[in-house]
Amino acid sequence: MAENKPTRIVILGGGFAGIAAARALGKQTRHDPSVEVHLVSTENYFVFQPLLPAVVACGLEPSHIINPVRMLCPHVHVHCATVLSIDLENETVCLEGQDARRLFCLPYDHLILGLGLAMDLSRMPGMSEHSLPIKTLGDAFHLRNHVLSKLEQADLEDDEQVRRSALTFVAVGGGFSGVETIAEINDMVKSVTKYYPRARACGARVILVHSRDRILNELGEKLARFAERKMRDRGVEIILGARVKEATPAGVVLSNGDMIQTDTVICSIGNAPHPLIAKSSLPQERGRILVDDCLRVKDHANVWALGDNALVPDVSSGGYCAPTAQYAMRQGKVCAGNVLATIRNQPVKPFSFGGLGQLAVVGHRCGVAHVFGINLSGILAWILWRSVYLMKLPGLRCKIRVGIDWTLDIFFPKDIAMIKVDRTKQLQRAHFREGETIIRQGEIGDKFYIIESGSVEVLLEDSEGATQLLATLCAGDSFGEIALLKDTKRTATVRCIGAVDVVMFARKDFQQLAGSFRAFRDRVMVDSDDRERSSLASTSTNEAS
Amino acid sequence: MAENKPTRIVILGGGFAGIAAARALGKQTRHDPSVEVHLVSTENYFVFQPLLPAVVACGLEPSHIINPVRMLCPHVHVHCATVLSIDLENETVCLEGQDARRLFCLPYDHLILGLGLAMDLSRMPGMSEHSLPIKTLGDAFHLRNHVLSKLEQADLEDDEQVRRSALTFVAVGGGFSGVETIAEINDMVKSVTKYYPRARACGARVILVHSRDRILNELGEKLARFAERKMRDRGVEIILGARVKEATPAGVVLSNGDMIQTDTVICSIGNAPHPLIAKSSLPQERGRILVDDCLRVKDHANVWALGDNALVPDVSSGGYCAPTAQYAMRQGKVCAGNVLATIRNQPVKPFSFGGLGQLAVVGHRCGVAHVFGINLSGILAWILWRSVYLMKLPGLRCKIRVGIDWTLDIFFPKDIAMIKVDRTKQLQRAHFREGETIIRQGEIGDKFYIIESGSVEVLLEDSEGATQLLATLCAGDSFGEIALLKDTKRTATVRCIGAVDVVMFARKDFQQLAGSFRAFRDRVMVDSDDRERSSLASTSTNEAS
Repeated sequence: MAENKPTRIVILGGGFAGIAAARALGKQTRHDPSVEVHLVSTENYFVFQPLLPAVVACGLEPSHIINPVRMLCPHVHVHCATVLSIDLENETVCLEGQDARRLFCLPYDHLILGLGLAMDLSRMPGMSEHSLPIKTLGDAFHLRNHVLSKLEQADLEDDEQVRRSALTFVAVGGGFSGVETIAEINDMVKSVTKYYPRARACGARVILVHSRDRILNELGEKLARFAERKMRDRGVEIILGARVKEATPAGVVLSNGDMIQTDTVICSIGNAPHPLIAKSSLPQERGRILVDDCLRVKDHANVWALGDNALVPDVSSGGYCAPTAQYAMRQGKVCAGNVLATIRNQPVKPFSFGGLGQLAVVGHRCGVAHVFGINLSGILAWILWRSVYLMKLPGLRCKIRVGIDWTLDIFFPKDIAMIKVDRTKQLQRAHFREGETIIRQGEIGDKFYIIESGSVEVLLEDSEGATQLLATLCAGDSFGEIALLKDTKRTATVRCIGAVDVVMFARKDFQQLAGSFRAFRDRVMVDSDDRERSSLASTSTNEAS
Repeated sequence: MAENKPTRIVILGGGFAGIAAARALGKQTRHDPSVEVHLVSTENYFVFQPLLPAVVACGLEPSHIINPVRMLCPHVHVHCATVLSIDLENETVCLEGQDARRLFCLPYDHLILGLGLAMDLSRMPGMSEHSLPIKTLGDAFHLRNHVLSKLEQADLEDDEQVRRSALTFVAVGGGFSGVETIAEINDMVKSVTKYYPRARACGARVILVHSRDRILNELGEKLARFAERKMRDRGVEIILGARVKEATPAGVVLSNGDMIQTDTVICSIGNAPHPLIAKSSLPQERGRILVDDCLRVKDHANVWALGDNALVPDVSSGGYCAPTAQYAMRQGKVCAGNVLATIRNQPVKPFSFGGLGQLAVVGHRCGVAHVFGINLSGILAWILWRSVYLMKLPGLRCKIRVGIDWTLDIFFPKDIAMIKVDRTKQLQRAHFREGETIIRQGEIGDKFYIIESGSVEVLLEDSEGATQLLATLCAGDSFGEIALLKDTKRTATVRCIGAVDVVMFARKDFQQLAGSFRAFRDRVMVDSDDRERSSLASTSTNEAS
């Protein structure tokens, strides 16, 4: 039976690289029962990242630039889950799905890593708390609503200083995404202020802060200067050669000593290695995995890496491939071919691609482009930008929808609906019936509980299924801390005696609270130590008996 | 100067009633500088509620059924804010905008109340914690993502029982919104399971629980039975004559003793009076404001009420108007006319409208309708349903977008993107610089703070601006509880000595935590009492000196 088990290829990551590999593998293996392709993606959709700035500025609907992974990748087993760990020795990845209490193990024969990069802002105090990233669709959507909420606030506000802070928008980082985002926000804010009479009277400030001496370093000097000039013409203040030193609720402090008072700091810098890659034993340089020119990880016969989390040799230039979508997509195809070739004992092919060029939009109907060695700017570059992206968007439905959005924006003003979809509750509450189990011994610990009303019994189950009562807890008591503090599985079962209402903290919040709040920590720890002692005591009694 | 002040009409509520009144008033007063129209809406957009079930089922994009209030109501002062209180004696409403620390007072000459109804599930233990409402766009969007997340979970899950609970969808309440929502979910789940092979193998259960002996009470017996039969044919289980007694994370318990194991309970029942209306001195019956047939509140010459929060006499039937959109919109127009007539000393007109009929969709291309006294069912009723709603949608852009969505759904499969836009962080953190003020004496208290690192000084300012140091706090200490516990303004200013990092709780969470968690409460209270004593002591010393 073991011989008949299909060879399993597991792809981690649902970005440009992972999706391209999955699509190619799905296509080439759909009639081959000896190969099984699995894709693990944290979202169940693929985001066409280059259009995120347009989503921020209400130019495109969030749902129009995404594609469900299951539709994009037929013949592939799709798992919408977060990768918790990669076990290279046992050739297994460990996944967490929609329920944090349950883990799933997925063994692999070949592993393809397309996890992308993470973000690390820890070198700039306050930036992770007070700046808004633009990496995911959720970020773009949140930022869109945030900008609109600031316009609403400014329109209601009487205090001049509060209103000025609300109407100041700062982007940190002058790369493609920072430039496009702030250019789009600048256009949007200025075109919609007619609906906000009191905000218009005050006027908005839009500022781009960049650490080097010119924006868009990836483009040539001439184009970058053109982009800079155009943006300044449209009213964007550009501060060059300055870094953010610190961010607070009041604004940002720059390395040149200036303080900008603002409620909105958009951050497109701080790329960092993916935490799973960083803590793995894979060969890496500057946080990116070292691969050969066939995309195979050095010294690992069945592990492959591509996209932003890999350092792929660029045969044409002798350096390394740029971390952009056009490289990632082509790497995905080549990698798919090489993995299959390896399985089928055929020769692998090296990755070679010279890049097509770069495109950016710097304002309404104004772009810059460097394609096939030619520089373009203005409306021509803008038309090229729209055409290329419309062509590259995967799926006919996306193309139609984006095409319609772009047509409607000629005839209609920008949308200003601040779509409140988050149902954020900081504290979660739950109600349980008599006899229901709140925590089950052996499960992963995901929450800390405080009893609001009712009472529970804490039970220890031994390997033979016999249970022993450790404690009875009632309103005002708390439980569930041991597994969270020690990162172990649940050490006991907690069952309701009557109906019980509880308040819950998620794992991360609990850990942070325990780490920072003395009163909380002291009290919880004392309870916890008592309980653990009694748990150990009863285990030993059991063993003795 | 006082004579030249324009007469101010303030409308509370951005639903069908409030928007209709605002649009009519804006139109009729745009050339009249002697009248000023203000609209207060918690969202900055108007939602076309009847299409929410289609949003839940991925049939329409959330952004396509909404319209920015500022665009819908030109010539009206729009305030995107929550109404905190209504002061009938001083003819003022108090608003909270995007920043919870700041309040705004809006005096009125005429007040129009269109606040709608609230929800109260307190009679069913666990329902408010474990059921999903479908009142707002956020609810619909959340429910859509929740249903898709359950499909994703079921596809990953190995445990049979966990998978069955994930694939069981229960709606409570057999009115229009409950029926349409569960019918749409039934269609969606069954049409998309082809993308979820392991979920399909298990099969989904879709259940409607209704307390009476037939669904859609507003329709006649014959149509309601047709709707019921059609839904059963399509696989919806309908449980009649049963109420929900209790809900827990494991499922719901019905009044007939049955327990349904499910992760998804959709709730369309539990209408309750709006809290502001309930606690006001306005004449009311069953939580709805009593008005005369001209929509003026009894015994209040300048207060008007309409829509769901008003009990409007129905001249044609002798009873009261139904709480539906068609009545609300017409009431808005009549109310606008009557308010202006009152200001201009002209006679007011009574509201009279017989209702046009009722429409509902009970499955793919299958509807029921009772219009102009005629019963329709099947595809004809469905076509009528789509035509009427397309016609009634405000704004050309909405019509085009919904029309396109409805056209695309003929050619493309349903979307299954589980759009994660919430960036839920339970605990918020903040970073402050040296000398920055965290809390300002006299502001509204919106947060409780725990110091993670750094130290702060607590300062008391007297009326002459002199400050006095009350305490110095450092890592592990907490502050900000007094204003939250006693619902007063901030009693002192808290300023950073060096850079400071804090963890924060929002007001509601803090109050709940203080109410339920003994360890937390005990500790915070002791600190708080000490501090307040010292604050009072220093105030009296000041006064003495």
